[in-house]
Amino acid sequence: MLKCYLQRESELVVKKGTILSGMRPTGALHLGNYFGALENWVKLQDDYECFFFVADWHALTTGYEDTLEIKSNINELVIDWISAGLDPEKCTIFLQSKIKEHAELHLLFSMITPLSWLLRCPTYKDQLNQLKDKNITTYGFLGYPNLQAADILIYKAGFVPVGEDQLPHLELTREIARRFNFLFGEVFPEPQAILTKAKVLPGTDGRKMSKSYGNTIALSDDPDTIRKKVSTMVTDPARIRKDDPGHPEVCTVFSFHKVFNEAELPEIEESCRGGKIGCVQCKRNLADKMVKYFEPIHERRQKILEKPEMIKEVLHEGNKKAEEKAKKTMEEVRSAMKIDFM
Amino acid sequence: MLKCYLQRESELVVKKGTILSGMRPTGALHLGNYFGALENWVKLQDDYECFFFVADWHALTTGYEDTLEIKSNINELVIDWISAGLDPEKCTIFLQSKIKEHAELHLLFSMITPLSWLLRCPTYKDQLNQLKDKNITTYGFLGYPNLQAADILIYKAGFVPVGEDQLPHLELTREIARRFNFLFGEVFPEPQAILTKAKVLPGTDGRKMSKSYGNTIALSDDPDTIRKKVSTMVTDPARIRKDDPGHPEVCTVFSFHKVFNEAELPEIEESCRGGKIGCVQCKRNLADKMVKYFEPIHERRQKILEKPEMIKEVLHEGNKKAEEKAKKTMEEVRSAMKIDFM
Ligand code: SF4
Ligand code: SF4
Repeated sequence: MLKCYLQRESELVVKKGTILSGMRPTGALHLGNYFGALENWVKLQDDYECFFFVADWHALTTGYEDTLEIKSNINELVIDWISAGLDPEKCTIFLQSKIKEHAELHLLFSMITPLSWLLRCPTYKDQLNQLKDKNITTYGFLGYPNLQAADILIYKAGFVPVGEDQLPHLELTREIARRFNFLFGEVFPEPQAILTKAKVLPGTDGRKMSKSYGNTIALSDDPDTIRKKVSTMVTDPARIRKDDPGHPEVCTVFSFHKVFNEAELPEIEESCRGGKIGCVQCKRNLADKMVKYFEPIHERRQKILEKPEMIKEVLHEGNKKAEEKAKKTMEEVRSAMKIDFM
Repeated sequence: MLKCYLQRESELVVKKGTILSGMRPTGALHLGNYFGALENWVKLQDDYECFFFVADWHALTTGYEDTLEIKSNINELVIDWISAGLDPEKCTIFLQSKIKEHAELHLLFSMITPLSWLLRCPTYKDQLNQLKDKNITTYGFLGYPNLQAADILIYKAGFVPVGEDQLPHLELTREIARRFNFLFGEVFPEPQAILTKAKVLPGTDGRKMSKSYGNTIALSDDPDTIRKKVSTMVTDPARIRKDDPGHPEVCTVFSFHKVFNEAELPEIEESCRGGKIGCVQCKRNLADKMVKYFEPIHERRQKILEKPEMIKEVLHEGNKKAEEKAKKTMEEVRSAMKIDFM
């Protein structure tokens, strides 16, 4: 065994553990989504065994009444992912609804998950309030963290990249893992959070970047679109003439420079405060940097668009790998629960 | 088409529709279970396309804390069924947990089922009260009627044999079918109840026949055991001597005669009231009738026990047939919901 290991050592990439994360297919990703999660995924795929999934069943928890766009959104999402640098050779990209075992484990977890755990989940009531116009007081919406626990634990993921707001859900996953292990014997790890330090980008109008405000820059925007959107960005309203002194701390363009143009930041700040640079010029500079930053992403997108059938191929391959691992875990689950009759 | 139909007409058994029903594997069936459902199933299999399933996932809703006996209970249950006369050539006998599509449809239904429908289900609070000692305030226990809806509708069953107490659950299934059809287009029938007129047999002590009272006669009891149990039955307590006048209406043995010995009923009633027959003799007469009644069932059981591997074979065959139909329905479901990406 040892010899065999040594022989192959040079080819081996020793990974630090297994990671699971997913996104709902709700339309083109914007830069908030990119910097909030995807950029981090691209880094993680080198060091961890990563499973990234399109959460199409989750999309139904809040979107069951209008499913018209789910299919094109799934396609878009995977294009966004691969453009951004997820490499199907390095990570497993799959479609949740094709791995029936998620539904099976969800059902089994539902038997051991106290209703009170779900009702007291802080995001549950928050979301009910936020999405008041949608008819989401459903059984499935309440059980959303339970499905999430199944998604994570079926791959025995030890790590989950999450934002702060997702921590309560992850805690619930850990509680469900503990409860299962307590009742039926040790099967699941208790996954740890990998907190994503998100770079925060406002929308072009200065508010939070959000599709519902129409103020996003999409990861799929081409250079011309980026330039156009940057040119409409809200700047310091106190600057009317070029030589008015500016306040970069209230300027959207400056927030973007922080992310895309760190090197020139002190210089821009000084010129702005001193009224030595015009906003038009400052925006043009930002647009140049952004276009350059996204060049490799846009190039990859062009290549994918030349062979659109590759998206389904990537998912087919990923589904196969995911299913294999999910089936293996479910065998252990059924055996631990003593329900493996045949 | 017409010609083809006519040519094959002689071989065709035109069935009246599809039936779905199931039982939880909770141990040997007793005569209450037999007359409450199984006897009726045996009749229905000739006229309907019947799917009968072992509800092992349902067994977890109230029994997740002790799963030690599920496997032997599954085996026992199918032996009971086939002994009772279910014929795998006539009906489809399968194991719920082997058809993952039940879990998938359950999950999809959960997205469209208002929480309030489940909370107001009259049996929900009843059961919570009855099973107070068990820890069943779980998400899965609440969702039980939702899983039941998936079980029924995935086979597009038009008919479900139920007792009165199950009517609210069936109504919920009909509501879920309606809601799905309203949201996504006509896929499911609204199944009708076939009310089972259960012959009511008390337990040997005169109370309701129930495993928890230890007063059952099992379908698997051999003739000697039947005789022994009949001899311990509670009779009219007013009869001390053979010539004391009896009151058949309060006698457990008489309740059994009603079911197994209708022909002699007037005669027994008269002899009992007139103090012309002893209880020992009356019981012996009943035991003879019961042993005779169950002779074919016991014979079939003996044959099955000679080749115990047949139980898994029957389930394998049944699972295949059930899965085929379930997969077909799920294709329609995913297409109607527009989530059939690949
Ligand atoms: S110069 Fe640049 S940083 Fe200053 S207000 Fe104009 S756009 Fe913003
Ligand atoms: S004679 Fe028969 S019916 Fe009458 S009390 Fe005895 S056992 Fe019951």
